[in-house]
Amino acid sequence: MTHTLVSGLEPPYYTAVFTSVRPDDPEGYGETVQRMHERVQDVPGFLGYESARTPGGIGITVAYFRDLESLTAWRDDAEHEAAKRHGREHWYERYSVHIGRVEQSYHYER
Amino acid sequence: MTHTLVSGLEPPYYTAVFTSVRPDDPEGYGETVQRMHERVQDVPGFLGYESARTPGGIGITVAYFRDLESLTAWRDDAEHEAAKRHGREHWYERYSVHIGRVEQSYHYER
Repeated sequence: MTHTLVSGLEPPYYTAVFTSVRPDDPEGYGETVQRMHERVQDVPGFLGYESARTPGGIGITVAYFRDLESLTAWRDDAEHEAAKRHGREHWYERYSVHIGRVEQSYHYER
Repeated sequence: MTHTLVSGLEPPYYTAVFTSVRPDDPEGYGETVQRMHERVQDVPGFLGYESARTPGGIGITVAYFRDLESLTAWRDDAEHEAAKRHGREHWYERYSVHIGRVEQSYHYER
């Protein structure tokens, strides 16, 4: 769970938008998310991520990367691949991933 | 609140990722979201949206558009502009918008 927004991003950068449907608290999920949270920090070009989930609804995670190379490095990380495979087998009813190149962004703060 | 994922998207398309921090149930929020939900359906090139919010955490909404023209038409819609202005004055502590062009996407369904 993230409480703050990723800030200071200067276009161009890349977003991986992950949207999913899964049960509320599947076994082993929290530990895996924590492990991935730690592991992604070591990926060069990783800029941060945000995550939200409506109870009983859907979940959305957005991860930010400097370039497509850093995003691809994380996508293909062996431990991340294993976690995704486990997630497909045990947790997710469905999910989508959208890889986008960001050319414009805005930030508002009161 | 959305319960299902937008499917059938064929790249290229555009995403507007809106991430925000706001109080849990601000006055007038639900009505405005419902009105915007109805209004955006009429924008040519609008492909759907998904929204999630962790109670006490952040909210993320992703809207999908066929091209930058349709996304811009919605961004500049007069009633939408008024709603955003009201949101800045009354609801949001902070928010970010990231406009991305999607060249790759994946979908999994059990």
